[in-house]
Amino acid sequence: MTTPTPAAPHPFDEAMAFTPCDAPAGWPGHAGTRYWQGRTHPGYANMVGPFGGITAAQALNAVMLHPERLGEPLALTVNFAGPLADGPFIAAATPLRTNRSTQHWSVALLQTDANGALAVTTTATAVTAARRETWSVSDTPAPPVPRPHEVLAEARGGVPMEWRNRYEMRAIVGDFPRVWDDSHGHSSLTQLWMRDAPPRPLDFCALAALCDLFFPRLFLRRARRVPIGTVSMTVYFHAGSTELAATGTGYLLGQAQAQEFRNGFFDQTAQVWNEAGTMLATTHQVVYYKE
Amino acid sequence: MTTPTPAAPHPFDEAMAFTPCDAPAGWPGHAGTRYWQGRTHPGYANMVGPFGGITAAQALNAVMLHPERLGEPLALTVNFAGPLADGPFIAAATPLRTNRSTQHWSVALLQTDANGALAVTTTATAVTAARRETWSVSDTPAPPVPRPHEVLAEARGGVPMEWRNRYEMRAIVGDFPRVWDDSHGHSSLTQLWMRDAPPRPLDFCALAALCDLFFPRLFLRRARRVPIGTVSMTVYFHAGSTELAATGTGYLLGQAQAQEFRNGFFDQTAQVWNEAGTMLATTHQVVYYKE
Repeated sequence: MTTPTPAAPHPFDEAMAFTPCDAPAGWPGHAGTRYWQGRTHPGYANMVGPFGGITAAQALNAVMLHPERLGEPLALTVNFAGPLADGPFIAAATPLRTNRSTQHWSVALLQTDANGALAVTTTATAVTAARRETWSVSDTPAPPVPRPHEVLAEARGGVPMEWRNRYEMRAIVGDFPRVWDDSHGHSSLTQLWMRDAPPRPLDFCALAALCDLFFPRLFLRRARRVPIGTVSMTVYFHAGSTELAATGTGYLLGQAQAQEFRNGFFDQTAQVWNEAGTMLATTHQVVYYKE
Repeated sequence: MTTPTPAAPHPFDEAMAFTPCDAPAGWPGHAGTRYWQGRTHPGYANMVGPFGGITAAQALNAVMLHPERLGEPLALTVNFAGPLADGPFIAAATPLRTNRSTQHWSVALLQTDANGALAVTTTATAVTAARRETWSVSDTPAPPVPRPHEVLAEARGGVPMEWRNRYEMRAIVGDFPRVWDDSHGHSSLTQLWMRDAPPRPLDFCALAALCDLFFPRLFLRRARRVPIGTVSMTVYFHAGSTELAATGTGYLLGQAQAQEFRNGFFDQTAQVWNEAGTMLATTHQVVYYKE
């Protein structure tokens, strides 16, 4: 009988590993600001820089680690202000207002640029809240779809975006286009089953990352690839830790659709449920496109 | 022939009248932060404190007035961190990152509380952008509805919320409930025509305010009034100044629906078109409810 080797840490946990650090020179922090050093993770690399979802998760992670945090995430807005270079960054999280049951956060990710100046790569605000049980109802039930194992998993490998290997994706409708023929008039709707690969029990940061999993709606609508980049995304967490625990390592059903493409920017509105049909999050983003 | 008297300023313009001021003691601003003194406006009073939409507009106003602003509003997230007392406040706006065609802003509204301490009442982030003409298409066309004058204007007066007198509202479906009988199962969908009263040419700040015009979806869904308050709202501006000019003083078609009510918080997703059917904004919010 051999001694089992300790399981390797999940890449997502590696990406969330922050070390407390001092305030960077030149950053005007508040009394309650705490600083952490984090790093981009090669396992979540995008074409250039990291997958936006992992950056959103890291911004939220700075709030989750703050010793004065009250309650659980309710709202998160992440603004992708500038490129995040591969390597270390500083995450600064500040509780700007603490009420009886809600708390308002400001977050910035900072890097030293090529000229030695401190650059803001990412800004975020978050609201955490202590939830109580109340009258509750879903007004957007999960659509009737095949179960996860009834749809094909996306073939991985060969895609020049390493982060996509960190997720299992099973498209139901609106799969990544196979043909780029500029044929307009496609629906921008995608429905898919998705989860971390390898599976990992869901937490708030992982859910924030999954909210950015949908490929650009413009690719689907136009059957054309143009340079794009998410500018800002917002997540409303409807799940508390009870619903996250009930979700575990199960699949999430994601549904995303564009509403408007106009003069260089389009938006996306999306919903995320668990396998049992519980709404976990609603999420929105606005995305730059070049032409 | 009498000399016409100059028209009285519109209440909305009065609410946007800011005066430059110094940094408040104890606020760690950045090099580029500019400060303005603003005031709550009695014409936009809610039951307690101001209408959230006017506060959102004032937060955006601090960006619009900043001499280093690049481009026009693309995204705005406003977090209602704490009560805004009737009277003066300081708006602090900081361009945290300026790129070639986008700029990322942090905004705070500050008041001195009863103990003489500086309190953050409102936080916001905004993205402004220089737009270029590109391929564009609407993926959520305006629904077919009667024209503004084919639906009744809401009777004003008697409502203990002064701000509602600053808007003309013509509900198409999902009007403010007339009967509070706890009857569940209503749709949370509202469609209405809306505009400033008196009419005023649309600008970005006014559009931000209009995005908060919808009464709480919970009232409609449950036919029950419980204490509520918006926690965070986001606006994506699809209109540039060309589309705003084309809209002028015309009506806007607003459509709002809840997605999930859970343990003290519900969300709302909404769209705003002009009379010609041009999408002006998509907007989302998460709202606290007591029970």
